[in-house]
Amino acid sequence: MTDLPRTADLGFARLDPDRAARTGTPEVVYAAGKTPAETVACLAGLLDAGVPLAWATRVDEETAAAIRERWPAAHVDRGARVAWVGTPPEPVGSVLVLTAGTSDGGVAAEVAATLTASGVGWRRVDDVGVAGVHRVLAVAPDLAAADAVVVVAGMDGALPSVVAGLTDRLVVAVPTSVGYGAAFEGLAALLTMLTACAPGVLVVNIDNGFGAGVAAARIVRSAHRAAG
Amino acid sequence: MTDLPRTADLGFARLDPDRAARTGTPEVVYAAGKTPAETVACLAGLLDAGVPLAWATRVDEETAAAIRERWPAAHVDRGARVAWVGTPPEPVGSVLVLTAGTSDGGVAAEVAATLTASGVGWRRVDDVGVAGVHRVLAVAPDLAAADAVVVVAGMDGALPSVVAGLTDRLVVAVPTSVGYGAAFEGLAALLTMLTACAPGVLVVNIDNGFGAGVAAARIVRSAHRAAG
Amino acid sequence: MTDLPRTADLGFARLDPDRAARTGTPEVVYAAGKTPAETVACLAGLLDAGVPLAWATRVDEETAAAIRERWPAAHVDRGARVAWVGTPPEPVGSVLVLTAGTSDGGVAAEVAATLTASGVGWRRVDDVGVAGVHRVLAVAPDLAAADAVVVVAGMDGALPSVVAGLTDRLVVAVPTSVGYGAAFEGLAALLTMLTACAPGVLVVNIDNGFGAGVAAARIVRSAHRAAG
Amino acid sequence: MTDLPRTADLGFARLDPDRAARTGTPEVVYAAGKTPAETVACLAGLLDAGVPLAWATRVDEETAAAIRERWPAAHVDRGARVAWVGTPPEPVGSVLVLTAGTSDGGVAAEVAATLTASGVGWRRVDDVGVAGVHRVLAVAPDLAAADAVVVVAGMDGALPSVVAGLTDRLVVAVPTSVGYGAAFEGLAALLTMLTACAPGVLVVNIDNGFGAGVAAARIVRSAHRAAG
Amino acid sequence: MTDLPRTADLGFARLDPDRAARTGTPEVVYAAGKTPAETVACLAGLLDAGVPLAWATRVDEETAAAIRERWPAAHVDRGARVAWVGTPPEPVGSVLVLTAGTSDGGVAAEVAATLTASGVGWRRVDDVGVAGVHRVLAVAPDLAAADAVVVVAGMDGALPSVVAGLTDRLVVAVPTSVGYGAAFEGLAALLTMLTACAPGVLVVNIDNGFGAGVAAARIVRSAHRAAG
Amino acid sequence: MTDLPRTADLGFARLDPDRAARTGTPEVVYAAGKTPAETVACLAGLLDAGVPLAWATRVDEETAAAIRERWPAAHVDRGARVAWVGTPPEPVGSVLVLTAGTSDGGVAAEVAATLTASGVGWRRVDDVGVAGVHRVLAVAPDLAAADAVVVVAGMDGALPSVVAGLTDRLVVAVPTSVGYGAAFEGLAALLTMLTACAPGVLVVNIDNGFGAGVAAARIVRSAHRAAG
Amino acid sequence: MTDLPRTADLGFARLDPDRAARTGTPEVVYAAGKTPAETVACLAGLLDAGVPLAWATRVDEETAAAIRERWPAAHVDRGARVAWVGTPPEPVGSVLVLTAGTSDGGVAAEVAATLTASGVGWRRVDDVGVAGVHRVLAVAPDLAAADAVVVVAGMDGALPSVVAGLTDRLVVAVPTSVGYGAAFEGLAALLTMLTACAPGVLVVNIDNGFGAGVAAARIVRSAHRAAG
Amino acid sequence: MTDLPRTADLGFARLDPDRAARTGTPEVVYAAGKTPAETVACLAGLLDAGVPLAWATRVDEETAAAIRERWPAAHVDRGARVAWVGTPPEPVGSVLVLTAGTSDGGVAAEVAATLTASGVGWRRVDDVGVAGVHRVLAVAPDLAAADAVVVVAGMDGALPSVVAGLTDRLVVAVPTSVGYGAAFEGLAALLTMLTACAPGVLVVNIDNGFGAGVAAARIVRSAHRAAG
Repeated sequence: MTDLPRTADLGFARLDPDRAARTGTPEVVYAAGKTPAETVACLAGLLDAGVPLAWATRVDEETAAAIRERWPAAHVDRGARVAWVGTPPEPVGSVLVLTAGTSDGGVAAEVAATLTASGVGWRRVDDVGVAGVHRVLAVAPDLAAADAVVVVAGMDGALPSVVAGLTDRLVVAVPTSVGYGAAFEGLAALLTMLTACAPGVLVVNIDNGFGAGVAAARIVRSAHRAAG
Repeated sequence: MTDLPRTADLGFARLDPDRAARTGTPEVVYAAGKTPAETVACLAGLLDAGVPLAWATRVDEETAAAIRERWPAAHVDRGARVAWVGTPPEPVGSVLVLTAGTSDGGVAAEVAATLTASGVGWRRVDDVGVAGVHRVLAVAPDLAAADAVVVVAGMDGALPSVVAGLTDRLVVAVPTSVGYGAAFEGLAALLTMLTACAPGVLVVNIDNGFGAGVAAARIVRSAHRAAG
Repeated sequence: MTDLPRTADLGFARLDPDRAARTGTPEVVYAAGKTPAETVACLAGLLDAGVPLAWATRVDEETAAAIRERWPAAHVDRGARVAWVGTPPEPVGSVLVLTAGTSDGGVAAEVAATLTASGVGWRRVDDVGVAGVHRVLAVAPDLAAADAVVVVAGMDGALPSVVAGLTDRLVVAVPTSVGYGAAFEGLAALLTMLTACAPGVLVVNIDNGFGAGVAAARIVRSAHRAAG
Repeated sequence: MTDLPRTADLGFARLDPDRAARTGTPEVVYAAGKTPAETVACLAGLLDAGVPLAWATRVDEETAAAIRERWPAAHVDRGARVAWVGTPPEPVGSVLVLTAGTSDGGVAAEVAATLTASGVGWRRVDDVGVAGVHRVLAVAPDLAAADAVVVVAGMDGALPSVVAGLTDRLVVAVPTSVGYGAAFEGLAALLTMLTACAPGVLVVNIDNGFGAGVAAARIVRSAHRAAG
Repeated sequence: MTDLPRTADLGFARLDPDRAARTGTPEVVYAAGKTPAETVACLAGLLDAGVPLAWATRVDEETAAAIRERWPAAHVDRGARVAWVGTPPEPVGSVLVLTAGTSDGGVAAEVAATLTASGVGWRRVDDVGVAGVHRVLAVAPDLAAADAVVVVAGMDGALPSVVAGLTDRLVVAVPTSVGYGAAFEGLAALLTMLTACAPGVLVVNIDNGFGAGVAAARIVRSAHRAAG
Repeated sequence: MTDLPRTADLGFARLDPDRAARTGTPEVVYAAGKTPAETVACLAGLLDAGVPLAWATRVDEETAAAIRERWPAAHVDRGARVAWVGTPPEPVGSVLVLTAGTSDGGVAAEVAATLTASGVGWRRVDDVGVAGVHRVLAVAPDLAAADAVVVVAGMDGALPSVVAGLTDRLVVAVPTSVGYGAAFEGLAALLTMLTACAPGVLVVNIDNGFGAGVAAARIVRSAHRAAG
Repeated sequence: MTDLPRTADLGFARLDPDRAARTGTPEVVYAAGKTPAETVACLAGLLDAGVPLAWATRVDEETAAAIRERWPAAHVDRGARVAWVGTPPEPVGSVLVLTAGTSDGGVAAEVAATLTASGVGWRRVDDVGVAGVHRVLAVAPDLAAADAVVVVAGMDGALPSVVAGLTDRLVVAVPTSVGYGAAFEGLAALLTMLTACAPGVLVVNIDNGFGAGVAAARIVRSAHRAAG
Repeated sequence: MTDLPRTADLGFARLDPDRAARTGTPEVVYAAGKTPAETVACLAGLLDAGVPLAWATRVDEETAAAIRERWPAAHVDRGARVAWVGTPPEPVGSVLVLTAGTSDGGVAAEVAATLTASGVGWRRVDDVGVAGVHRVLAVAPDLAAADAVVVVAGMDGALPSVVAGLTDRLVVAVPTSVGYGAAFEGLAALLTMLTACAPGVLVVNIDNGFGAGVAAARIVRSAHRAAG
């Protein structure tokens, strides 16, 4: 097997600079388990290897500062805990991002930042939980205008079931760890979404706004590839 | 402590004939762990002790036949797996019983039979799951006419959250074991209902139509006591 | 669908000022996932929309201070972690609130504050756990005087089973996260209450004093509506 | 709210004939919890309401026979346990359906039947589990030709992680209940897929081939809508 | 290490004939995982090695018949699923065996048979669950007369907490798999008993009447050794 | 019911001063959920009601200081986190307390302090885990001299199985939360002990040294009552 | 990537005839999810591709008969549910296979058959559970003579901890689903083994005798490769 | 039993100085549950008893300082949290240590330090997760050169399945607690590894680098013993 993809070996990490070519999304640095210096080194390594947009998630304040020190023009989105160096592509398409409650906002911000970095457009409407189901019905025009829908919800996680029954767009459901007791850190919402009584719902890990964003970007790009 | 309630001792069982006086509901025979002969003996013991309506749940075909053989006029509700000997009181009040899907029908039947035996009126509307949320909105007049609402749902268990946001009646939520995989025999619906984003929802054990019916009867009787 | 309820859009939150009209309880601000400023903004938004009593739960010291700064006359109940702006309605009816142990007191305080804010009367008796079952028997007169009973218990969660066998009032059971080891943060008490051998017990989420209070208020109001 | 969608009320079921117009997929009859007669009645009700393709899943032998008796020209796919009455639309697009092992075949068949009924084309390649990772690498040309990928896997559920690192298509992961012991009826595969180290993976419930098929159809239709 | 206890090697089993000398209870054959022939061979091997009472638990009908065929005078207790060859010792002491409901009877029978085979006396009172707590109070004289108490309960498993608050005898709690839904095959009762709010409760495995009987016998023998 | 036991009502707590008469152990104050002032108030209330030894568990440094300030002669055992006011009875009998590892020492100290306060003698041998099974064999003389055995073990929790096969004394098994990963905070040890392959093992809650001590004291007192 | 291993495509299965060359063990047919005809077809396909020993596990009676019909000289081990066509290599080395109880025999038989098919010698000693720990000590000479040890145990799963403290050989631990209640189908034994207090224990899936055998064969072959 | 191994009794700990002779690895001090002084005392006790290399794991900064103060020449590996006094044996053999991601580095360091202390050689390659499966294929030469492989992975834990299909070396799989949400602190990776579709994988507890190192050392020594 002679033509394996390139690997950029930093010792503690082996970067995969061709990942964007293979998968449409570059290797993104998950900062949660790394020191600020390690995150910066990974971003630098990716830029050195020619990645146009080097990008990290789960960036805390200290890491954000380290990134800004190295690249003063870096973009930092504190609500989303996302940072990048470089310029995202012009956005195509549109993803509708809904949250059930205001506490789900941080995860929704990660979805939105991921879409922006991926070159995909989005519109966000917050706090449309099913306890006031008229709020869900009110987003019908937004559903019709979207290429795909991302629904972020904690507690009972019931919103994706209702949304998927109102639209023919794919619904990407993100359970959040919002809630207490029998919410079991997002488990209740996760199980609800996996057993949604309406088909057309697909699920990511608890609080995984990044994964939802990448998936939605794949859908939009798939549409644009077909359209192109 | 001299004035303890009476106990009717059958050897294998100690009946509690004063339970209706204390709690509003007589001791009800749970037939699932008993032979047909044992269930019949318990019913007979309760009748001997003066209980006006002797009543069993989780009655299978064989037990139903044994009851009918002993008391040809006994009432048997096969869908609800409930049987009784005697005449229920005239119904007062009204409970609305909703199901999310047709597979929840057996549990809803147990709710309804329990209400009838308890002397409480009911109205049942089936298959109003949130995948077609307009079906939920259509029951608004029924909600306004009810003293309390019992919602029976499996899979994602999302219906009580939506209903509780539409009414000021208490919502008794019954998770069912309908579903597969991550429904985990009703666990998903149970957790959803316990974490319902709308307050006003109370929960019973999975598939516990009897418990939901007794609870709803207590609420209706409470209202009538106040009104009386 | 033209006549949807109003929504007050704060950007990060979409308030539902007509919720009290629909459900008997206004939208209540869950402060746990919000900054003090966000909680204050939500309360202000609800007041602006004409809600007579704007109300928040899970209020920490910092949020309580922010509320007091904005509305010096605001009511703050530190034990219950509840705060409100405005005057609760005159109380009607009576709910008996029992705790199994002194450690369950914080959750019972949230139940009581919720009832007060809902315009429902209550009486509280603490520390009547089943390890000294005579303490339970001693509350029989209180049970007879109540419209409904809320039982708050951690550890083995056995108290609701005993209480429900002594009264015909509905028993709202609140498992608490009190206990260690196999109490599994309230899971043991939750399962006990869901499988209570006495019918007439309904269950809310672990530590959910607010939910228990709203449910009990719905029962009392139901009685008074019938009586009215 | 005057313009709610139509409901066809069969008493035990309330059909939703406009669901295809809203969501792209008609209401599909889940036969698992129904008698053969009930399933037939639901299919007939949908056809009466003008649905062009009436369709059921989890169809056992007895139900299949009842369908064939009523509609001799009905299509029955025994491997997929799917049956329909009417003619599916001409297929557009192409979904690649992969299985990790031969035991995952039944679930993959349900995916494929769902796609056919939805008017979407597919290609299926079986038994490409990661224990011989060269088998995965060999499907690279199939990945490039697909609009989306569905990966069906039990046991360790590792296949979606590998596939998502090789393609820019969305990967819909279906955990199956294949395996024993710590596979816990599909739980191990479900958790693996939810925590896939490669982004671009979305997950459905265990053994839920129908849900995966509907989701993949939404993606393909989204692409064709964009392209159209 | 030269003086290890004897082992009787049957090839498929290695019997431990000195176990009674070490632990007070002979090796008892657990018939559940064995063929009737294997159980008979184990009993014969123990008798050959001089054990005065050879004994098996979880004996089904077929195994009971095989034992009776080999030893026509063997004792078989069908309710307890216990059989033995030989004569139990004269009983000393007294253990009170309580059940919460009639469905717990089979496990209580195993407790009682184990005590008899161990040469310990017992008294059994059934169906004293906490839903009618006066039934528990009525056993106070039996508690005072016992050396130890075994409490057998399923569903909410609340009985041991109440009993342990009424007596200074050790309470051996046996959770049973009686119940459904959130009883989770005895898990709810197990957790309740482990977190009993009254001290003096010790717990065995779910449905483990044998283990409870052996433990109670150790307690009684300990008392008699001290008294002797 | 006229002759209920006395209750000392402190408002936030209802003390049960007759508990020692009923159960052999006085009400013991669980300090974990209380302020230092509340614990002191409970101890004072018990002393006022005539309890000869007032006693608290899970006492932290701050609470210990508050107790010492009020009663300078109070006994405080920091390792066990136990404190008492008054003089324990002269010890009778002997309990052997074994630990599997040094990390189990805190729980064993709580066992020992509970025994002392209960007037029961004990001997403690630490660090005899089964990884060096000769250490277990070496305690055989201690087993023969004991009235009962308490075994404290975390991680795999295997020690009680081995001990119960070496002695005819009752083995009280205490799982501890020592360990990481799949030890799941003591769950692994708890399950091991519940499924011990040797009978004669009874189990308490994870880390519940107090419960184990009270149970062992009941056994010893039972022996002495018989002997007396 | 031009030189991928060969694949033999049967349509429903893609065989991997070079697996023995890569991994030391040929692809082995897991018969549990296959029809007898499919298992026979897979075995035939492997033989056609030149595999010297074609081999299946989890073979039921019907499949065994189908194999015998096609290859009358096939070896079938009913206790192990293993069958093969061809002649295993001459055995090298020696693995000691221990069981805790007689009910673990079926899994141990699968270990032994796997070793034989892999060309590795073994010795098996049954029923050496820790309830009679002298039986474990008695196998010390067998431990010294082995290249590796496989320990098969259900219920408390305590045996590997004891064995690993007595030997410097690697201990492969196989939890079995033997036991009831809190054994949770092998989960208790699995957790015990994962948290074994003695290092040198590695664990396979519940009841996975095949996996343990392959792993032990890799160890023995590693030793012989080094020795060769 | 006269010839039991020696025990060095420190009061709070009973050291086992002959463990290396029995098992090939000396007793290693688990510092997590001990004070720095206790860890130092245990190391000193082992050295006093003649152990050539005294060794501790889970050593925090404070304990490391205490060790250095007592033995200035002690070796401390901060990344691995391991410290030792004395000189490890010359390394024999070679173990390949792989990590799926950079966050798994701390556990891999504990593996490597354990191997070094055990006198076994190793080579470590980091960050070869299956999201870029070419990185796995690139380690084929390292696999061929190793006596055994240790694979450290969190999140989906898929790497061991792929590696075991590429080599005939034993694969020791270490799940890590890296990941969030449905990773459930390493549970997802643990279940994945236990159900690996490729045989030849054995599993240790979550984050248990020490256990993996000891096991791998046993394999290498087994090979060298055979070779010797």
